[in-house]
Amino acid sequence: MEATAPRDVAMDDCIANCTDCHARCVETLRHCLERGGQHASPDHLTLMATCADICRTSADAMLRGADVHVYTCRACAEICRRCAESCERIADDATMRRCAEACRRCAESCARMAA
Amino acid sequence: MEATAPRDVAMDDCIANCTDCHARCVETLRHCLERGGQHASPDHLTLMATCADICRTSADAMLRGADVHVYTCRACAEICRRCAESCERIADDATMRRCAEACRRCAESCARMAA
Amino acid sequence: MEATAPRDVAMDDCIANCTDCHARCVETLRHCLERGGQHASPDHLTLMATCADICRTSADAMLRGADVHVYTCRACAEICRRCAESCERIADDATMRRCAEACRRCAESCARMAA
Amino acid sequence: MEATAPRDVAMDDCIANCTDCHARCVETLRHCLERGGQHASPDHLTLMATCADICRTSADAMLRGADVHVYTCRACAEICRRCAESCERIADDATMRRCAEACRRCAESCARMAA
Repeated sequence: MEATAPRDVAMDDCIANCTDCHARCVETLRHCLERGGQHASPDHLTLMATCADICRTSADAMLRGADVHVYTCRACAEICRRCAESCERIADDATMRRCAEACRRCAESCARMAA
Repeated sequence: MEATAPRDVAMDDCIANCTDCHARCVETLRHCLERGGQHASPDHLTLMATCADICRTSADAMLRGADVHVYTCRACAEICRRCAESCERIADDATMRRCAEACRRCAESCARMAA
Repeated sequence: MEATAPRDVAMDDCIANCTDCHARCVETLRHCLERGGQHASPDHLTLMATCADICRTSADAMLRGADVHVYTCRACAEICRRCAESCERIADDATMRRCAEACRRCAESCARMAA
Repeated sequence: MEATAPRDVAMDDCIANCTDCHARCVETLRHCLERGGQHASPDHLTLMATCADICRTSADAMLRGADVHVYTCRACAEICRRCAESCERIADDATMRRCAEACRRCAESCARMAA
């Protein structure tokens, strides 16, 4: 007997996108520190760190089946969109572009979950 | 030379309330498991765990001076309000009442930060 | 120019195993609450929750290239081994067995990273 | 009826020290980015971020009464000691010195909990 209701495909996608965006932001943070200059601006890096946190919080809310994931996904959609814009502004190499893409994908699927 | 701008009192209060609510939810979770019954219902406990997560995410966003704390605080205000209601519904001992109070306090100061 | 040194395959594997074990523990927690009985014992569930936390802390330490990942992986190896044993003790369905397997895999790769 | 056993004073102290060290590391991270130079070196900042994570993981393990806190506290003691040394090396202002002190205090109480 498996008591837990199966998650739908859209939520599974959103969990995967949040998990990927979290990982990208955490690893890109070091890349930005190594690049220095505008990559290492306090506003960009504190945004990246907060994006990583809210992605994990949203992924975990969905993984544990908490219906308040609607609120975390709404916040996550906004913050990922802001983080994508910040990465795109300085997207002069493949690492930054990959991070921006992960943020865009996460923003879109979180916006759908929060709708 | 201290480059970091001082935080205002309302934000310091909100950080303290988020930190306290996070800790209360984490420690009350064990209490609920030990009590069993409705205290240990999946909906109540996954709400408590998500409340702990968003409280920490919001506290950290403010501690690192990320202006997107507005979005995390908005989510935190909603989730803490829901968690307070869930704790109050079963608040038959001092531990549950203290947790409900911490959630109420956090919900109110997060709502102010998100306004 | 990509300044960040490439991670080796063993570390990439360990990050994937920690990420998977984190997700399994978070989602299995709800399953355990729904099953109740020994699945919902305070000792089992607080172990699962701590296993989820240390897995994420270790994955993130490796993702951001922090050399202190050696210490987090050592703790993660021990806690995952303990969590696997706890899941195996009550592994009467596919969800528990999958969680136990994820913990075993993570324990093994973390032990290698910490060696 | 309160089912949860009271924590002893040493553990309460350790939880407070981990919570304080987590907050100091998160807020000092922005300060270091604003200072730039050696304050913003990738090795220092990824150490600070990992120190913040393991402090929270240890605090939460103790708050939820998980006996595997012994392993997280052992890792936390090592990482906090390393983070204190890194802060002390560049401790040319009050913010860095306060962060170093929080790390030392946390390292000492975690070492006692892990003994």
